[in-house]
Amino acid sequence: MQPIALLFALLCFEAKADDGYRLWLKYDPLQDASKRASYSKSINSVYASQESSTISAAVEELQMGLKGLLGKNITLVKSMDSKRGNIVLKIENNEKLSEEGYRIFSQNGNFYISSKSEKGLLYGSYEFLRQVQTLQDLSKINIESNPKIKLRLLNHWDNPNGTIERGYAGASLWKWHELPYVIDPRYKDYARANASIGINGTVLNNVNASARFMTAEYLEKVEALAKVFRPYQIKVFLSVRFSAPRNVGGLPTADPLDPQVRQWWKDKAKEIYSIIPDFGGFVVKANSEGEPGPQDYNRTHVDGANMLAEALEPFNGIVMWRAFVYKADPNGDRTKEAYYEFKPFDGQFHKNVIVQVKNGPLDFQPREPFHPLFGAMPQTPLMMEFQLTQEYLGFATHLVYEAPMFKEVLDADTYAKGKGSTVAKVIDGSLHNYRFSAICGVANTGSDRNWTGHPIGQVNWYTLGRLAWDYSLSSEQIAEEWIKMTLTTQPKAVATIKDMMLKSREVMVNYMTPLGLHHLMGEGIHYGPQPWLDKSGRPDWTSTYYHRADTIGLGFNRSATGSNAVGLYAPEIQAVWGSEENCPLEFLLWFHHVRWDKKLPTGKSLWDELCFRYYGGAEEVKKMQEQWIPIKPFIDKEIFTDVLGRLQIQHREAVWWRDACVLYFQTFSKKPIPEPLEKPKTTLEELKKLVLIYQMR
Amino acid sequence: MQPIALLFALLCFEAKADDGYRLWLKYDPLQDASKRASYSKSINSVYASQESSTISAAVEELQMGLKGLLGKNITLVKSMDSKRGNIVLKIENNEKLSEEGYRIFSQNGNFYISSKSEKGLLYGSYEFLRQVQTLQDLSKINIESNPKIKLRLLNHWDNPNGTIERGYAGASLWKWHELPYVIDPRYKDYARANASIGINGTVLNNVNASARFMTAEYLEKVEALAKVFRPYQIKVFLSVRFSAPRNVGGLPTADPLDPQVRQWWKDKAKEIYSIIPDFGGFVVKANSEGEPGPQDYNRTHVDGANMLAEALEPFNGIVMWRAFVYKADPNGDRTKEAYYEFKPFDGQFHKNVIVQVKNGPLDFQPREPFHPLFGAMPQTPLMMEFQLTQEYLGFATHLVYEAPMFKEVLDADTYAKGKGSTVAKVIDGSLHNYRFSAICGVANTGSDRNWTGHPIGQVNWYTLGRLAWDYSLSSEQIAEEWIKMTLTTQPKAVATIKDMMLKSREVMVNYMTPLGLHHLMGEGIHYGPQPWLDKSGRPDWTSTYYHRADTIGLGFNRSATGSNAVGLYAPEIQAVWGSEENCPLEFLLWFHHVRWDKKLPTGKSLWDELCFRYYGGAEEVKKMQEQWIPIKPFIDKEIFTDVLGRLQIQHREAVWWRDACVLYFQTFSKKPIPEPLEKPKTTLEELKKLVLIYQMR
Repeated sequence: MQPIALLFALLCFEAKADDGYRLWLKYDPLQDASKRASYSKSINSVYASQESSTISAAVEELQMGLKGLLGKNITLVKSMDSKRGNIVLKIENNEKLSEEGYRIFSQNGNFYISSKSEKGLLYGSYEFLRQVQTLQDLSKINIESNPKIKLRLLNHWDNPNGTIERGYAGASLWKWHELPYVIDPRYKDYARANASIGINGTVLNNVNASARFMTAEYLEKVEALAKVFRPYQIKVFLSVRFSAPRNVGGLPTADPLDPQVRQWWKDKAKEIYSIIPDFGGFVVKANSEGEPGPQDYNRTHVDGANMLAEALEPFNGIVMWRAFVYKADPNGDRTKEAYYEFKPFDGQFHKNVIVQVKNGPLDFQPREPFHPLFGAMPQTPLMMEFQLTQEYLGFATHLVYEAPMFKEVLDADTYAKGKGSTVAKVIDGSLHNYRFSAICGVANTGSDRNWTGHPIGQVNWYTLGRLAWDYSLSSEQIAEEWIKMTLTTQPKAVATIKDMMLKSREVMVNYMTPLGLHHLMGEGIHYGPQPWLDKSGRPDWTSTYYHRADTIGLGFNRSATGSNAVGLYAPEIQAVWGSEENCPLEFLLWFHHVRWDKKLPTGKSLWDELCFRYYGGAEEVKKMQEQWIPIKPFIDKEIFTDVLGRLQIQHREAVWWRDACVLYFQTFSKKPIPEPLEKPKTTLEELKKLVLIYQMR
Repeated sequence: MQPIALLFALLCFEAKADDGYRLWLKYDPLQDASKRASYSKSINSVYASQESSTISAAVEELQMGLKGLLGKNITLVKSMDSKRGNIVLKIENNEKLSEEGYRIFSQNGNFYISSKSEKGLLYGSYEFLRQVQTLQDLSKINIESNPKIKLRLLNHWDNPNGTIERGYAGASLWKWHELPYVIDPRYKDYARANASIGINGTVLNNVNASARFMTAEYLEKVEALAKVFRPYQIKVFLSVRFSAPRNVGGLPTADPLDPQVRQWWKDKAKEIYSIIPDFGGFVVKANSEGEPGPQDYNRTHVDGANMLAEALEPFNGIVMWRAFVYKADPNGDRTKEAYYEFKPFDGQFHKNVIVQVKNGPLDFQPREPFHPLFGAMPQTPLMMEFQLTQEYLGFATHLVYEAPMFKEVLDADTYAKGKGSTVAKVIDGSLHNYRFSAICGVANTGSDRNWTGHPIGQVNWYTLGRLAWDYSLSSEQIAEEWIKMTLTTQPKAVATIKDMMLKSREVMVNYMTPLGLHHLMGEGIHYGPQPWLDKSGRPDWTSTYYHRADTIGLGFNRSATGSNAVGLYAPEIQAVWGSEENCPLEFLLWFHHVRWDKKLPTGKSLWDELCFRYYGGAEEVKKMQEQWIPIKPFIDKEIFTDVLGRLQIQHREAVWWRDACVLYFQTFSKKPIPEPLEKPKTTLEELKKLVLIYQMR
């Protein structure tokens, strides 16, 4: 064997297994030979009408991607020598396009990617590659696309010591001790992945923020990352600690009305922008779960947010002020508190403030109704905070495709301006003519080689970007394109994986918290079932606060006869959710305390329905394992084995959830587990011990 | 381009940069064409006289390694068809070999790797590969090798939540939530790397142990790892929490003399061995830094260790009981305490107990004298605990080759039985005829792609294995073989890198803690200089406790006129270290409080010498950067760039250390920084703020 052939052979040997690092930008040779031939024939070179670092990034990606997919060198030409087979990147005016939008079309044997700006060329180039990756017909391609939401962000809950709050895929991507001099090649791949799905901003650090990010020492490190992200049109943002003027500024107070404090933030903003000219802005978690905030000085959220907003305004920075606040009140209802705390401030926030609201009023549960603030603050831009990382969704060992969960909320109707006033229209700004629109996802990324722990967890990152760009995309469509780009294009395998993904969220709801149950997870780490948890640091961190099980029934009465949280929604919604009879089963126990023997529309009693859902959920995971096995020939072996192992764990944990919840609630219902369901093999006592193991230091 | 060629091309494109994952088992084609041709000619196939999973592992490694290095398929033959060109793995008696030893020799055109057991065949196979990787002459190969130390271990300070105490290379390798069903392919590569350097055991969890490892839930996960490691002859060990009988056993006490407690541990041992038949044993950190232990019940270390030892004895398990204990006493001397606490117990420990002693009496400082317990417990096996992870050595951004540090301690003479009673002879068991011999290194591994953060940090892992096998290897020899296997065989590049490595530890000592200074690192995280630290959770966690700077001089008087810690050593040593005049400069301030104007043998005053060392250390890092740059053509680009960046940070931090220490000590010496050294550009006040940034949450 000759040395050079040998080298190839070796590398092939090593590269055989797919470790998932390349995400959906895999660019392996297309398996469909006729498609590959057809694409190859029609694409020879790329031509860009202008130069910039972003256009270079787009060209580089097209070259790398097409070389991989088609096995062909796509040359960058300085002029359109050849009359056909060019990909032409062209900046031109087009009234139908927003600044980031693009048009892709074919004309006279060339493909045009056009936009008003380099941004659209970048996004259009990734779209072009996606068309090839998913085997679309390019001959009559004609796509016009504008993002529906302007700021499309990841929020990293990454701590400066390298840990990630609620992260299940290794350590932080950001190596703060190595920055600014060591630039991990991964930073660029992170930027590519984000750009490919339209994400245009990243909040680098945990909302439980370290003040150290407000020092020159760290801003230099932040700029080193910003520099890598810049060609990919990704702005950096930072979470700020409200007390930073005290922590690192040497001031005696952080009172937002104190002139010195206000000046400190103004100077700090100036300093930041002198280092990072395109800095995006701040995210703030204030007076929430022990974080400092304006209320420490008897000031309001408005006082705090506006002070920061005024400091950032000269530089076009924005403040994302989180609405995730709640006080410990054993007799209250945590799901109402953000509404009461924020709604009165509607219209009082400075023009570059956006209030960041989680999808539901509690905290990233498997299912929640949409947050009542959506539709309730017409004069204050609200943005959506989704959670990609599976804090309450089984960590990185449960296969959960989140698009249906996100879509459920985006499509929900607030009735704020009559029928059709969906949450999506609130956050895209169209319903209330907001000045801003934004959406963010709490990242599920970490330093694990495959980024997200669960190989299929990658799709949730992908989904956030795709939905933020265009929330009208269906869950099915997003799943299908992701599968084809990432796992396989073999039609049966695509169909099977898609089926597994599409049902996965409902399956999880069933084995964890069916019928509107919520917050039954293990204390602190939110792992495993602990519905019996009745003491914790705060009453609203227990499970019993939420499920209210007693000998009569189950569920939190949030109807007019209870906490009346339902009263925070529009009358049209109250009429449905507020009535035990009309309430959809998925929210039943969220809004109502329901008798164990109450006959549900399914024909079963509450108790029986509960049992069948828990058992059904666990059984479905078993079925997913069975579905996965025949896929083996069509996907990479390493990914196949990894997912199979995770499905085994998921099944074990689904049974754990089922048994724990059924046995525990049975102590109240006093009813037998209905036939033909088999009784759990473990005892409640054993299960109570099991969850404690995972809570030990 | 044809599809198949294309595939190769693509993979090559991607595999071009070396991410360091393969460690020293790189197996890239040998660059030396004549050597490669000569090896290729003489090696055709491999033949094993017996079958076992370990022999299969050895064969697989030989095939994979030689295929890479030589570009040739080495077939496994069932009989020695061909009369020449075989590698023969043969189990046979040989009185000169211990169970793990091997002999490699050539005879009649075949290479023989022989051993009394499959273990030796495994180690011999890796040695054979190393010979090829480092371009040795095989024609007259004749190597006979036995490990000098029986247990050669890594200690992982990995927590079950995935964090690593004092880890600087990402998250834990062990994915506890994914185990036992998801087997990360990395586990096998971890085992291969260890086996290749003779490491035969691994302690999976932090010595600050979680009791959860004593549950069936976790033992099943541990066995899943043990199963991967088994063919590579790596036993798993666990750190145990002394209070486990209370934490997970439901007992009211963990008193080692309580019959129920003793029975609980016996039952637990039986359970462990029923799940993991080749389980290695326990490591225990007891009554140290707040960990539970026998003293909680007014019992002794002997009571605690012997209870566990008796439980493990029926299964041949061992207890490694750590001697790292110290009490908070502002008027005491922490470096004496372990000696006083353990020496009285000499001879009282059960026969399967080994006392695990850190190399020095303090805590993994850049330089410490050897621990006075070595040589002081002739009737109790003592083992060595080195720290590979750079807790006090600049984390993963400082290039520090630790072999010279380890060798310095191993070669130190205790005089316990007269001249030549080296520490190495204590821990290999030969000096006192110990029943066991063991050495461990606190691992510097993590989930970072390159395992150790700093690419050159890999060598410290490599060193531990190689020195544990044969501590007579020189630092130079180990460096040279590691460089050739890992970075380059180009002679000038090898020489330069070796030079950088060999001096690196002394350079670090100079810019951090020259002349015997110690423990000046930032509070808690041990990062950056904080010599002014005078308040902490305990007096012996401050810096001032250790350096004792005053207007008269600098250093901790541990001579007979001071704490007399020097009195714990042999008289021969006392005569040298105990005298300010005789004491080698590297230990001067460890043992003496020396006047600022004291004239040292270098001709300089203490103050001037101190300044020149700090400045010299920082300057040397600058020189290392300059040395590194010309290496570029000879090593992988990604590794080159990474190391270059780290050298930049190291220089920045070396200057930080220099300036902080010189300016701070100047407040006592009141002397100018000697010419021609330039005054620091920063102020002491600025430097005091800087270290605090890195200590913020």
